[in-house]
Amino acid sequence: MSGNKKRFTTKYGTMSHTKKFDSFSEKEDSVPIGSLNILSAKYESLDYEVVENYVYREEERNKGYPFVVKKNVVRWIIFFWIGVITAAIGIIIDLSIETIADLKFNQVKKYIDRCNQSDCLWKPYLLLLAYNIVPVLIGSTLVAYVEPVALGSGIPQVKCYLNGIKIPRLVRIKTLFIKVIGVITTVVGGMCGGKEGPMIHAGAVVAAGISQGKSTTFNKDFGALNYFREDHEKRDFVSGGAAAGVAAAFGSPVGGVLFSLEEGASFWNQGLTWRIFFASMISTFTLNLVLSAYHGHPGDLTYWGLLNFGKFSNFALSYEMFELPIFFFMGIIGGLTGALFCHLNYKLTVFRMRHLVNRWKKVLEAVLVCCCTATVGVLLMLWQNDCKPLGLDPTKNPVQLNCNDGEYNSMASLWLQVPEASVRSFFHDPTESLDATTLGYFAISFYLLTIWTYGLSVSAGLFIPCLATGAAWGRLIGLGVQCVFPNVDVGKYALVGAASQLGGAVRMTISLTVILIEATGDITFGLPLMICLLTAKWIGDYFTESIYDIHIQLSGIPLMAWDPPPLSSNIYASEVMSYPVTVFKSKESVGKIVDTLKKYTYNGFPVVDDVFSADTEGGNNKPNGRLRGLILRSQLIVLLQNKVFNEIPSAWDNVSLTTFRRDYPRYSNIGNIEVLDSERQYTVDLLRFMNPSPYVVQHMASLPRIFRLFRAMGLRHIVVVNDSNEVIGVVTRKDLTRYRVWRHRGAIGVEELQVSAKL
Amino acid sequence: MSGNKKRFTTKYGTMSHTKKFDSFSEKEDSVPIGSLNILSAKYESLDYEVVENYVYREEERNKGYPFVVKKNVVRWIIFFWIGVITAAIGIIIDLSIETIADLKFNQVKKYIDRCNQSDCLWKPYLLLLAYNIVPVLIGSTLVAYVEPVALGSGIPQVKCYLNGIKIPRLVRIKTLFIKVIGVITTVVGGMCGGKEGPMIHAGAVVAAGISQGKSTTFNKDFGALNYFREDHEKRDFVSGGAAAGVAAAFGSPVGGVLFSLEEGASFWNQGLTWRIFFASMISTFTLNLVLSAYHGHPGDLTYWGLLNFGKFSNFALSYEMFELPIFFFMGIIGGLTGALFCHLNYKLTVFRMRHLVNRWKKVLEAVLVCCCTATVGVLLMLWQNDCKPLGLDPTKNPVQLNCNDGEYNSMASLWLQVPEASVRSFFHDPTESLDATTLGYFAISFYLLTIWTYGLSVSAGLFIPCLATGAAWGRLIGLGVQCVFPNVDVGKYALVGAASQLGGAVRMTISLTVILIEATGDITFGLPLMICLLTAKWIGDYFTESIYDIHIQLSGIPLMAWDPPPLSSNIYASEVMSYPVTVFKSKESVGKIVDTLKKYTYNGFPVVDDVFSADTEGGNNKPNGRLRGLILRSQLIVLLQNKVFNEIPSAWDNVSLTTFRRDYPRYSNIGNIEVLDSERQYTVDLLRFMNPSPYVVQHMASLPRIFRLFRAMGLRHIVVVNDSNEVIGVVTRKDLTRYRVWRHRGAIGVEELQVSAKL
Repeated sequence: MSGNKKRFTTKYGTMSHTKKFDSFSEKEDSVPIGSLNILSAKYESLDYEVVENYVYREEERNKGYPFVVKKNVVRWIIFFWIGVITAAIGIIIDLSIETIADLKFNQVKKYIDRCNQSDCLWKPYLLLLAYNIVPVLIGSTLVAYVEPVALGSGIPQVKCYLNGIKIPRLVRIKTLFIKVIGVITTVVGGMCGGKEGPMIHAGAVVAAGISQGKSTTFNKDFGALNYFREDHEKRDFVSGGAAAGVAAAFGSPVGGVLFSLEEGASFWNQGLTWRIFFASMISTFTLNLVLSAYHGHPGDLTYWGLLNFGKFSNFALSYEMFELPIFFFMGIIGGLTGALFCHLNYKLTVFRMRHLVNRWKKVLEAVLVCCCTATVGVLLMLWQNDCKPLGLDPTKNPVQLNCNDGEYNSMASLWLQVPEASVRSFFHDPTESLDATTLGYFAISFYLLTIWTYGLSVSAGLFIPCLATGAAWGRLIGLGVQCVFPNVDVGKYALVGAASQLGGAVRMTISLTVILIEATGDITFGLPLMICLLTAKWIGDYFTESIYDIHIQLSGIPLMAWDPPPLSSNIYASEVMSYPVTVFKSKESVGKIVDTLKKYTYNGFPVVDDVFSADTEGGNNKPNGRLRGLILRSQLIVLLQNKVFNEIPSAWDNVSLTTFRRDYPRYSNIGNIEVLDSERQYTVDLLRFMNPSPYVVQHMASLPRIFRLFRAMGLRHIVVVNDSNEVIGVVTRKDLTRYRVWRHRGAIGVEELQVSAKL
Repeated sequence: MSGNKKRFTTKYGTMSHTKKFDSFSEKEDSVPIGSLNILSAKYESLDYEVVENYVYREEERNKGYPFVVKKNVVRWIIFFWIGVITAAIGIIIDLSIETIADLKFNQVKKYIDRCNQSDCLWKPYLLLLAYNIVPVLIGSTLVAYVEPVALGSGIPQVKCYLNGIKIPRLVRIKTLFIKVIGVITTVVGGMCGGKEGPMIHAGAVVAAGISQGKSTTFNKDFGALNYFREDHEKRDFVSGGAAAGVAAAFGSPVGGVLFSLEEGASFWNQGLTWRIFFASMISTFTLNLVLSAYHGHPGDLTYWGLLNFGKFSNFALSYEMFELPIFFFMGIIGGLTGALFCHLNYKLTVFRMRHLVNRWKKVLEAVLVCCCTATVGVLLMLWQNDCKPLGLDPTKNPVQLNCNDGEYNSMASLWLQVPEASVRSFFHDPTESLDATTLGYFAISFYLLTIWTYGLSVSAGLFIPCLATGAAWGRLIGLGVQCVFPNVDVGKYALVGAASQLGGAVRMTISLTVILIEATGDITFGLPLMICLLTAKWIGDYFTESIYDIHIQLSGIPLMAWDPPPLSSNIYASEVMSYPVTVFKSKESVGKIVDTLKKYTYNGFPVVDDVFSADTEGGNNKPNGRLRGLILRSQLIVLLQNKVFNEIPSAWDNVSLTTFRRDYPRYSNIGNIEVLDSERQYTVDLLRFMNPSPYVVQHMASLPRIFRLFRAMGLRHIVVVNDSNEVIGVVTRKDLTRYRVWRHRGAIGVEELQVSAKL
């Protein structure tokens, strides 16, 4: 332990001011491939803070209480529609997959049954390949060439967004389209991917879309709802969308709320939580209603979520004391395999980043994996002769492959259905229907294929493949337990295994427990689930970060932790902050503003009064005059664009909050703004538009204090002042996320990350 | 709506500086009886902030990472024991009530059956009276004479504590004892009270107790765990305790977590939430384990929570589309009856505060209510001849009263059991077993008795009586629906009615939904529960505050809302703050400190440097020199007590964080501290002990900004400075809670409350 402490001290010892200065002035490379310790400078924070400037107060005064009430009512309506539309997308995905997969498996079965006799098994194999390659080719091409942000499950990205980081193009409608097509093609293409993660992303896009009353993809502005055009409101809606996505995916409204809160909300707000819950409930209900009707039970409301664990009997889920240690042991296995999963996928991802840079290579890899998945499946069917009498397994497409008449190949039944159906098979099929070796082969092959699949250029989630892998080995353990206690249900062990495997990989805590409880539909099994999830998380965390966090770190995204690093109260604001600071006077010339915006990429500029203290002029800590407020780059751009200069009184009449909202969230680049030479001498009155009371800390404020303030208030900038209230620095997200805590192998420590420059 | 806006403006118009000054200098009366608009000055904030002063940093440096790891491990262990001990208390309460109530009802039944023939019904009546009066007398005497804070359910008080308010004696072990005895006697005494609310309070006390390693009641300090002796840590543990209480009471671990978060946590922290969930799960599990074993099914784990709704069949809880409007309608009824409930109880409470001041009167009233409850029950049994054939109702003590042989009196069966069992009867008994008139009479009488009971000088909660009332009228509606759709289950309507009634009175939102879902044990019924709870809350809020909030307002407790008042960004720090501020210099004389502490009751004092700005000397806004830090009254007391003066170097050696923790949370009064005259000239170096970077806002910071800062960070003081960083005021909880939002009858507005002086 003392070694760690030393490391900590050394780290801080080497943090010289020169180095910090460098990282801001020099253009370094972007994040090096495979590095987990570099933060990319290209990610900006969202701004949760409301700028209460003059125009804001004016609008507030003019609109009064009726507007407050109206805004509130509209919020509820929007959350309602977030629920409905998210569910609609879930329904489209679900029915598309079901229809196409049915067609595919039906045809393949027919060919297998026909060729089993006449020795032409290459025919169904080729057919299966074709059925897999075509959709995967479409999906991966779309992802690779059209919208790379649609890659993967989207959960890490949504997590970052909720954490307060701007992820470019994440919540555009175009992304949603690619994602929906991508996930359908991936699952139909028989790859080891699920449709649940993408649902969460889809919900987030829906929420961001309908709450803003405009679409960048369609270049259409409906003009409505422009009072919700700020990061603060938008992020609230996106929380609701993500929750609605979880609710639709797993039939888990409470889990959805907890997911949003666990991943994102910086501040638990009763009203917001209640609205999020409402959206989740509406989403679950809509999905339930439509799917029930589609499957011929209108009004019965029995379809609860896209991922249906099926109905466990009360007997199956009852447990006794002696089983708790077994669950604990399974949690350990889940943690170990989860950590190995994360590590192998990390190595693979680094390899990909290094060698598979071209788009066509990415598409090619996706097709390759797709072929391999199909081939592995077919080989296992041929290899493993697990023949069972027909009627035992409720599978849709039993094939006779290598079996006697009246029997079917149970390994084939696992591969000739979507992975979700396999999970249900593991949970509910009668004990005898699957042999131990079948389970073992399936678990190992699916585990490895999932590692290979995650991070490919396709849209697919991790939940279902992890659940399927874990359910397979869980059921295997269940078979072992049955040798000693013949009365136990193997499906229960499959469920515990599934939870352990998933928990070991994604390390979510309370929300995952609740999601699984809700998906199971029975709360009495909560304790076993919690035991295995907790154990899996602890064991997994002992070795690696979660799979999501690894991918976030590889991208260099400055995700904020929940708590400040321990033992850091001796690090002061003056050491954390970035400086020198570029400031503006309260009445600033247009020329100076334009030049500054062109020269620096900063997003916030303190506004100071004109008094400069003369005595410390030469020092490193040169103060900048007393703080008056903070003005954002986006505000300055809008002011320049609309020529709101003191010398052009007419421009003043039209300036209101609407002016600032019009371009949200994509403001012009300073390069595109034309300022006449004659206008460069004009002045802008920043007092009217700046945030008059930005959050401020004193230079001797400690890192934990700044961290908590930043985290709880969802800030983007904190201004650091000296004893005389003169600006000496600014703290941003990257200044705080640089200090990262690691906790592995029983030790704990803090490392300081570097920030790469913008490319 | 315009009228409201006017009111708002006027309110702020009249807020003169003189008035504010008065409320601080003059000794006014305490909160006037019946007023909802006065804040009592006697309630102080908890201090969620960690004072990172010199001694803190020293300890951090000395102890290093091993200490961080140890603290974390100990936290988990404490949360484990919180779960176990809370469950143990739940078990004690449950088994005591069950045993005594069984005895009582058994005897009464015997006498009734015997006297039914021989016309001596006064005998069982007197017996029942005796069985009720004796325990209630004991319980209410204890509450009235020994510990009044044990009154009621404890939920409002715990809510306030989690909100960050110091409630004197709330979490002492003595209070726990009185509460446990109180709740047993109340329920055994046949009153309309439940044991669920008190369980939450009990969990909170347990958590506060075992996390501190000492007990004030027993005057014993084990010396252990002193690093958890600060408001910040203690409140985290209490959150876990409250959650464990909910979990034990309702078998609802997730609901427990949500309760804690909904009521209190100012900041969602993943680690803390996970620990809270752990405690809740352990609590549920322990209770389950012990009660299962007690009832003869060891290892079976079937007893899930104290409040057992019983097992609903899958059929009973399935619902169809056409039923949703009915649930909605029932939500409206629940909202209306809930609002009426709150209003009547408010009037009654005011009457009590005015006329029932003496302790003996309080005890007398409790006994009176207890007699009335018994009498009403007996009269209804005699009046309502709802005779059913034996064997229909699974009641424990069927009495023949006024019925033919082979029949039993179904009204009597409802009254001759604890209310919790009645709730189960409404949920599960066969349709024919209870007549519509029986249900109607029961609902009305129980409703009125509950109004009368809540606020009596006994320990009892509101949940069960509300659920029983609502279940009765819900089942009544179910009978009505059955006339049209004969296939529906009346138990389902009883459940919706119960939820509506409870939701209309307590207005909890997401946590109550989850608690009810978990208590029901089936998540498919979530949507109907949410519909009726949401409707009931909206309708109820349209008319009154929740019953808890009314009681909190009557006590003048400055509870902070979730959001700042709307349209208040034109209210500035300089208007909100209290001033003039009493400040200390960084090196202050002992005499000045003693005099100041004796003169003022403030709990925090800004520390400033010696420079006083001369120019504004005469003005109202006289600045106080530049801010250096903030020192708490408790710290000063400890410094004086230990004579940590610059002139006594030996005292310095022993000062560490332990010195400050020793007396936490009950520091000496300044009057008890002896300072020699010779010592008055000595000085104290405040720089070493003060908080060197308290949260600060500028004088032009707006109310919403200050509010959010205060709320999110759980603060006690915010220092207001001017442009030169000179202290001009301090904002405390009462300065912010003075602005209260009301939202009734579709309108919204802000009213300014007054703060009463300390008595």
